[in-house]
Amino acid sequence: MQFFTKGYKETVQDILNDAIFDENHDEMVVVKDIDLFSLCEHHLVPFFGKAHIAYIPNKKVVGLSKLARIVEIFSRRLQVQERLTKQIAVAINEALEPLGVAVVIEAAHMCMVMRGVQKMNAKTVTSVMLGVFQSDPRSRKEFLTLTMEKE
Amino acid sequence: MQFFTKGYKETVQDILNDAIFDENHDEMVVVKDIDLFSLCEHHLVPFFGKAHIAYIPNKKVVGLSKLARIVEIFSRRLQVQERLTKQIAVAINEALEPLGVAVVIEAAHMCMVMRGVQKMNAKTVTSVMLGVFQSDPRSRKEFLTLTMEKE
Amino acid sequence: MQFFTKGYKETVQDILNDAIFDENHDEMVVVKDIDLFSLCEHHLVPFFGKAHIAYIPNKKVVGLSKLARIVEIFSRRLQVQERLTKQIAVAINEALEPLGVAVVIEAAHMCMVMRGVQKMNAKTVTSVMLGVFQSDPRSRKEFLTLTMEKE
Amino acid sequence: MQFFTKGYKETVQDILNDAIFDENHDEMVVVKDIDLFSLCEHHLVPFFGKAHIAYIPNKKVVGLSKLARIVEIFSRRLQVQERLTKQIAVAINEALEPLGVAVVIEAAHMCMVMRGVQKMNAKTVTSVMLGVFQSDPRSRKEFLTLTMEKE
Amino acid sequence: MQFFTKGYKETVQDILNDAIFDENHDEMVVVKDIDLFSLCEHHLVPFFGKAHIAYIPNKKVVGLSKLARIVEIFSRRLQVQERLTKQIAVAINEALEPLGVAVVIEAAHMCMVMRGVQKMNAKTVTSVMLGVFQSDPRSRKEFLTLTMEKE
Amino acid sequence: MQFFTKGYKETVQDILNDAIFDENHDEMVVVKDIDLFSLCEHHLVPFFGKAHIAYIPNKKVVGLSKLARIVEIFSRRLQVQERLTKQIAVAINEALEPLGVAVVIEAAHMCMVMRGVQKMNAKTVTSVMLGVFQSDPRSRKEFLTLTMEKE
Amino acid sequence: MQFFTKGYKETVQDILNDAIFDENHDEMVVVKDIDLFSLCEHHLVPFFGKAHIAYIPNKKVVGLSKLARIVEIFSRRLQVQERLTKQIAVAINEALEPLGVAVVIEAAHMCMVMRGVQKMNAKTVTSVMLGVFQSDPRSRKEFLTLTMEKE
Amino acid sequence: MQFFTKGYKETVQDILNDAIFDENHDEMVVVKDIDLFSLCEHHLVPFFGKAHIAYIPNKKVVGLSKLARIVEIFSRRLQVQERLTKQIAVAINEALEPLGVAVVIEAAHMCMVMRGVQKMNAKTVTSVMLGVFQSDPRSRKEFLTLTMEKE
Amino acid sequence: MQFFTKGYKETVQDILNDAIFDENHDEMVVVKDIDLFSLCEHHLVPFFGKAHIAYIPNKKVVGLSKLARIVEIFSRRLQVQERLTKQIAVAINEALEPLGVAVVIEAAHMCMVMRGVQKMNAKTVTSVMLGVFQSDPRSRKEFLTLTMEKE
Amino acid sequence: MQFFTKGYKETVQDILNDAIFDENHDEMVVVKDIDLFSLCEHHLVPFFGKAHIAYIPNKKVVGLSKLARIVEIFSRRLQVQERLTKQIAVAINEALEPLGVAVVIEAAHMCMVMRGVQKMNAKTVTSVMLGVFQSDPRSRKEFLTLTMEKE
Repeated sequence: MQFFTKGYKETVQDILNDAIFDENHDEMVVVKDIDLFSLCEHHLVPFFGKAHIAYIPNKKVVGLSKLARIVEIFSRRLQVQERLTKQIAVAINEALEPLGVAVVIEAAHMCMVMRGVQKMNAKTVTSVMLGVFQSDPRSRKEFLTLTMEKE
Repeated sequence: MQFFTKGYKETVQDILNDAIFDENHDEMVVVKDIDLFSLCEHHLVPFFGKAHIAYIPNKKVVGLSKLARIVEIFSRRLQVQERLTKQIAVAINEALEPLGVAVVIEAAHMCMVMRGVQKMNAKTVTSVMLGVFQSDPRSRKEFLTLTMEKE
Repeated sequence: MQFFTKGYKETVQDILNDAIFDENHDEMVVVKDIDLFSLCEHHLVPFFGKAHIAYIPNKKVVGLSKLARIVEIFSRRLQVQERLTKQIAVAINEALEPLGVAVVIEAAHMCMVMRGVQKMNAKTVTSVMLGVFQSDPRSRKEFLTLTMEKE
Repeated sequence: MQFFTKGYKETVQDILNDAIFDENHDEMVVVKDIDLFSLCEHHLVPFFGKAHIAYIPNKKVVGLSKLARIVEIFSRRLQVQERLTKQIAVAINEALEPLGVAVVIEAAHMCMVMRGVQKMNAKTVTSVMLGVFQSDPRSRKEFLTLTMEKE
Repeated sequence: MQFFTKGYKETVQDILNDAIFDENHDEMVVVKDIDLFSLCEHHLVPFFGKAHIAYIPNKKVVGLSKLARIVEIFSRRLQVQERLTKQIAVAINEALEPLGVAVVIEAAHMCMVMRGVQKMNAKTVTSVMLGVFQSDPRSRKEFLTLTMEKE
Repeated sequence: MQFFTKGYKETVQDILNDAIFDENHDEMVVVKDIDLFSLCEHHLVPFFGKAHIAYIPNKKVVGLSKLARIVEIFSRRLQVQERLTKQIAVAINEALEPLGVAVVIEAAHMCMVMRGVQKMNAKTVTSVMLGVFQSDPRSRKEFLTLTMEKE
Repeated sequence: MQFFTKGYKETVQDILNDAIFDENHDEMVVVKDIDLFSLCEHHLVPFFGKAHIAYIPNKKVVGLSKLARIVEIFSRRLQVQERLTKQIAVAINEALEPLGVAVVIEAAHMCMVMRGVQKMNAKTVTSVMLGVFQSDPRSRKEFLTLTMEKE
Repeated sequence: MQFFTKGYKETVQDILNDAIFDENHDEMVVVKDIDLFSLCEHHLVPFFGKAHIAYIPNKKVVGLSKLARIVEIFSRRLQVQERLTKQIAVAINEALEPLGVAVVIEAAHMCMVMRGVQKMNAKTVTSVMLGVFQSDPRSRKEFLTLTMEKE
Repeated sequence: MQFFTKGYKETVQDILNDAIFDENHDEMVVVKDIDLFSLCEHHLVPFFGKAHIAYIPNKKVVGLSKLARIVEIFSRRLQVQERLTKQIAVAINEALEPLGVAVVIEAAHMCMVMRGVQKMNAKTVTSVMLGVFQSDPRSRKEFLTLTMEKE
Repeated sequence: MQFFTKGYKETVQDILNDAIFDENHDEMVVVKDIDLFSLCEHHLVPFFGKAHIAYIPNKKVVGLSKLARIVEIFSRRLQVQERLTKQIAVAINEALEPLGVAVVIEAAHMCMVMRGVQKMNAKTVTSVMLGVFQSDPRSRKEFLTLTMEKE
């Protein structure tokens, strides 16, 4: 149990501390297929899947692995998928003040698989779009296109 | 036979009773690949496949597994795929009063496979879009994009 | 030979006779991946593949397997793929008077495979769009999106 | 060597001679996944892949296998992929005077694989769009959608 | 170590020297799936993946394998993925003065896999769009469509 | 219902009547991936899947499509998968008096999917081996190897 | 929690009560890909995967879905995969007194995925072979061959 | 028609004339996945698929493409799959006098697909093994293993 | 660097301390597809892939995740793949004194990919078999069969 | 041309010079999926594919990338696939004096694809087995099993 909730002890500040650089790059940066495991706060049953993150830098750029760390911090808590998605997006937005942030989480919930309904293949997709991802449908779409590019 | 029609005895109210929460989330929530089995009311032959559901919350949020329960209630009856799709969409719309609801069902009909025509691979796709999914082509399209994202 | 041309003896009226219902459904209905086999009228060599059909009902709804039957009637003749596509679309249009009809056929022609050119993997795609599928690019596109959704 | 360059001896006229028909069909006709082999004129090293062709008839329709023959004529020469793509498009345009012609070629070049760079998976994609495929982005896009529909 | 940094010794001029031709071709040329290996300048740990490049010629055309060589020159250095993407795009832009250049890099970073976060499947996607790829969303989208066309 | 049980009216003799030839061939003949649909006699719920058949001729050879017909005759009845497998094997054995007959059926039972257990992916495999397929493990194994060869 | 442990309240006798038939079938019966969910008794973390079961009847045959029920009974408890595998095999052996029973379970353990080691793709395979499956390597091998036949 | 039967005019001697070399190689040579098209002599309907050929040289070695030519000669006739398989094996055996010859043909018969039974996915596999492939089960098995190695 | 070599500080004893149980299970236990990352001691370049482990218990059983831990201990050092394979096998053998231990490692070496030879797809497979896996070819083979069972 | 034949200038001794180590490892070492490109000496047309190599060390172990180098040396010449396979096996055998060497090459020959026969999918497989791989069928088979393990 301790392991699943260790996210409470870490803060985004600790992690990003010295990993934010000034760099002249203003195109969308996408980190996709970040494995994610969390615990549903209603049934204490796991849900897991993948997070896809994009941001359009506004001078400040962050080390790529830090985005994955932020996913860790918020997923290692008792969660609801909708809230988890929003917390990740907001944290990145505050730390980097970018032109836009987009987060999509696609997850299977063990409560749907192991309890009554037994829908084994159901997946839940939630998304939060901030800044230009919200105002500009083309950025939003380009993000989805790049994320869907399966190998 | 009893099993296939047990949907008549359950109501959406019973299921959603205490699973609707107030939450500050206003982005599309998608639950996709919900396995679905029903019985065609014309030939009493099964049809089965997957339902994909999306809604954009308007303050009220529902437990994810409840969406799968609603699919169960309406599919465990003698059905026509077009009507089943609409019943699911309308039920969600009435219970959550969201900004929009979208339901797509993709199913194989055993009547096409086992009777005269013998079209073994044919699949039928029906959809119902309510609220912003009907008025805003971008929401409609984003839903289809997220649903099609195969792993 | 008799078998390949049995389509001449059947009429669309015979088939649809009592399978058209009044139903309050006005969203696109898609039947996709209908296996199809026909005989090219130029070389008497087979071509085969899949037909995808969509229509947007205008009060009248048809039993799903009937759409597959219509494909049978017109493909069991000496054909040209372009004409076959059009005949299916027109027949549905006349019988159901829907808001729109779309038919796409994707087929491999044995004449390309077995004769001179020997292009074994070539596929021919033809389409006919009537009503709103012709006038509204979004319906047209949504149909293609739903049809392409491979499992 | 003789074999790879036999394309010089054939003409498009010879091939299309009696395979052009008057037919009342005005929707896009696509022939995709036509295997293609040619010889790069710079290094005399082969390149090979697939050609996808579409045209929107303007009264005149051509036998499907003839499109594959035209690909043969121009690829059985010393070539550059950009020029090959254009020659095929222009030849169809002149012979059929259609509303539009689109040609996409996707090929692997052995010079990239076997010589210095050794990029084994690199593929080159070239395209030429004439008529409505050039002026109307929706035709252009529909062609790409139909071509990408992998089975 | 010497091998990973040999890119410092080569220049784009050396490579393109005599491989730029005048050719009458003004449609997009795409070279995709170019394998790419580089070394992250922060942790000296490798990152690798694929580069996709497109340009729309403005009279000047370049030998296809040269585009792969340019990827080599800039990836055989200590790098950051964002910068690498931009350097490739700028180099092509300066050498060919085309109507537009687009570069997308999709890569896995061993630092995410082998160090703390252990996100084994995470991939980072960066892109740089110059000229018409920046100003015209349709060119941008067509490039992404052609690149995503998996076989 | 009539359709699912039409198998009662046909006999193997009718079908094989004039399709048995004398031919000098004594190697295993395999017909695999024969689609099969039947009705479980316990729950009147369908089961469907594929039959694989092999026989080693003893002078008498049968038209290939007749083996598929025999599968039809016995599956279009109320059945149990174990019995269906045996009936097909015995029928072929009596009609052709071969050196050996092998039948494998792999099927999904809707009773497992739609009723209580809800095991959606479970498949049942039954087999009957007669003659040399029973006495000689190598024939048995070669049959399984050839059948498993997926494309 | 109640749901995961409901297996304690059911007995194999209840389930098999009237589903054992006398039937003249003595070839291996395989039910494969039975989805399975259980709870590791060490960490109370789920493990899930598939069970494959085979038995060679000795006069007594069981309804196919009952084998899946037995998997349910023993997996809906606090378990260890090795013990679960054995319990299923022994229960079938006692109820049917067959010539042999084979059970293979392949499962992913969330404790490996969510806790320290973070080996996301690791799968554990356990097997128990009784009767002829233990004494006769060919039966054992044939079972594995039939189970591995992926579609 | 002329095209499908052009095989009658060619002889194996013409083809192998000067393509047999003396070479010191005594390990199995396999040419697999040779596309094959023929015409069933019963219904004049095509069947097509792949031939796999192996031989173990006895001093004499043949140019690889000649094996494909031999497949052409015998398939471009009115055929029965069993006889076609044997003719290819015998022809190679007589021309090369090798230690052994093995031929496997896997084909789909349009008569099964387009006529009454409509079994669309059924495939027929025939094989002929001569010399050591007949006497030594290990050679036979190694051939099947190498042939089944799908990419 | 510190991270890649942290394996030196851990011992197998620390890890297995209290995770060895007495259990009455004597069938093969397989843990497969354990992701593995290590550093080649010759070039300090990473190699990574998967480890598959099997053991046949002799009264003593180990917690499954501990096998993955042992892989970690020995791979987080400067290694050679052959030695790594042996160290894992020997460590398990000493700790559990089982009837047999088998370890297979399949890995891609960045030195083959990033340096001179540039063989991007090459994989190296090493194995160590102790106890009955060495003496009994059937155990050895069954292990390989179970490990190769791809989903 | 110079590039394809650069193999003549290198010798196995040069390459293995200082990469042979004494190591106490006596289990099979496999390096598989080594990309390979060569030039057929009959038609000067390329053939390419993959080499799989195994050896069982007899005290002497070689650096893994050296095996790939040996493939380079012999393939960068005018070749015949049968001879290329043997030369690689013999070179390893002489340099390492192992207990056994096995080499399998699977290649597509452009002469089959681009010239008369046009068999586009045909692949040629050749193998040479020395030492225990020749005398012990189990080693031979284990090599094939490990090589065929596709991911």
